[in-house]
Amino acid sequence: MDWIYFLDIFGTVVFSISGVLTAMNKKFDLVGSLIIGFVTAIGGGTIRDILIGRFPVGWLNDRNYLYAILAGYIISYVFKARIIGLKRSMFLFDTVGIGLFTTIGIQTAINFGMNIEVCLIMGVISAVFGGIIRDVLTNEIPLIFRKEIYASACLLGGLVYIILETISPVRDVNIIVSILCVSAIRFFSVRQGWTLRWDRD
Amino acid sequence: MDWIYFLDIFGTVVFSISGVLTAMNKKFDLVGSLIIGFVTAIGGGTIRDILIGRFPVGWLNDRNYLYAILAGYIISYVFKARIIGLKRSMFLFDTVGIGLFTTIGIQTAINFGMNIEVCLIMGVISAVFGGIIRDVLTNEIPLIFRKEIYASACLLGGLVYIILETISPVRDVNIIVSILCVSAIRFFSVRQGWTLRWDRD
Amino acid sequence: MDWIYFLDIFGTVVFSISGVLTAMNKKFDLVGSLIIGFVTAIGGGTIRDILIGRFPVGWLNDRNYLYAILAGYIISYVFKARIIGLKRSMFLFDTVGIGLFTTIGIQTAINFGMNIEVCLIMGVISAVFGGIIRDVLTNEIPLIFRKEIYASACLLGGLVYIILETISPVRDVNIIVSILCVSAIRFFSVRQGWTLRWDRD
Repeated sequence: MDWIYFLDIFGTVVFSISGVLTAMNKKFDLVGSLIIGFVTAIGGGTIRDILIGRFPVGWLNDRNYLYAILAGYIISYVFKARIIGLKRSMFLFDTVGIGLFTTIGIQTAINFGMNIEVCLIMGVISAVFGGIIRDVLTNEIPLIFRKEIYASACLLGGLVYIILETISPVRDVNIIVSILCVSAIRFFSVRQGWTLRWDRD
Repeated sequence: MDWIYFLDIFGTVVFSISGVLTAMNKKFDLVGSLIIGFVTAIGGGTIRDILIGRFPVGWLNDRNYLYAILAGYIISYVFKARIIGLKRSMFLFDTVGIGLFTTIGIQTAINFGMNIEVCLIMGVISAVFGGIIRDVLTNEIPLIFRKEIYASACLLGGLVYIILETISPVRDVNIIVSILCVSAIRFFSVRQGWTLRWDRD
Repeated sequence: MDWIYFLDIFGTVVFSISGVLTAMNKKFDLVGSLIIGFVTAIGGGTIRDILIGRFPVGWLNDRNYLYAILAGYIISYVFKARIIGLKRSMFLFDTVGIGLFTTIGIQTAINFGMNIEVCLIMGVISAVFGGIIRDVLTNEIPLIFRKEIYASACLLGGLVYIILETISPVRDVNIIVSILCVSAIRFFSVRQGWTLRWDRD
């Protein structure tokens, strides 16, 4: 589980950066940016924990998540110009992050004895609700509802993970395959300009 | 209790449709619409359950709510044009839905030993917060704050239900009367253009 | 503890007024204003209680909070014109309110055995999230992210409180000093036009 924990912390840093950068674009002050980075990073996992009744919610018992958020915050201010130039890397990190958050969310729900549909939903919530809260707090229509195959990538990757968990005994491999799956879907969808809009009229 | 459960599921379908249609109007993609339908349908009950400490929250233990949401989602896409023509029916369904959600919310709070004021508040929260979350996520000022006697109908209907529960032993009748009460208030308020604005200056 | 409880209720009235006035400015109806006053007053403490797993959340077991909200609601409508003229007093009340909410939030988290960083975060959440929810529901970018040293005052005042709690045995004094600290920071920041923006480019 060690490398998963490491990736989870790493994902928290990435989500924190994404929140802080959004806040900086909106001219939020130093504390406002910190709050946005914070809720972006822990929002999804927090809502998942609350819904399944896991109290106190995860990050309250592990300082490392707070340090990860703080690290993302500092990185954002110090390397702002460079990060924006690193759009491609950020996209990659972000994609790995949501893939991982999806599988961690599903696994947490499985451990709490949730039924399979709920586990899948918890995976998606873990991955996308941090970004939704970020967009709501900055008064934007959440990006994921309109622009990219984002939640759908989580949904499909989550489905792959659940199937793998029932047929394959090596969890680490299942997680890696699921993350690759999420990444592949997002990568190709952005490249090909896929959308999921269906306008019948 | 059987017909109440049936109505509850039915109300979930209606709320899901209302969410999905709102999302479609905003040009959300297929997954975005599903998420909006989902939070509209289960948002109010979820907040109620969290506040009173009922974990895991209701819908996590009953797949039928998920199927109801999915049904509302599919209905929205397949019958989009017709549903919009059915504005009158939708208004009726919606009104029965909030009336029912109000009484179910109150009853749940009573079962958890809440005081009477809190029960009333939980009834209103169950009925209206799904719609509030829908409007927040689609970046609208929640409709219920401005346009119609909506929350007030729930408040009054809830009050009627609480009074009936203390004087009448037949719960089914109490629920029906309360729903009729909510429906009547909304119906007449819309027809007569009642508002609850109070501008002193 | 008696005077603290009294101040807590008083702070609830002040926050309720702030919410109702915001709603009135947005032309919300009577029930909409009540809902906004309600969530502004209990929002921060509710989120804190949920995160640390304190159920049912605080105000569900104490009617006085509800009466305080109702009092703020009635005061807002009856004395609307005068309250707006009392901007200076409202600012003072509000500042004392957030200072107090910060210390109460920290103390609650300490009682629940949270680590020191989490206690500090819970103090800030208790003080500022009511206002954040108010602004989200009225479709505004939360003020605290942009305009004033607000959350930062809570953060610093909270830090002072935590330090005092470890070195001074008289809690009442610690609370008063912390509140004075928050008030002083806010007062001078507004007077001097301090901001916490950092634009490197």
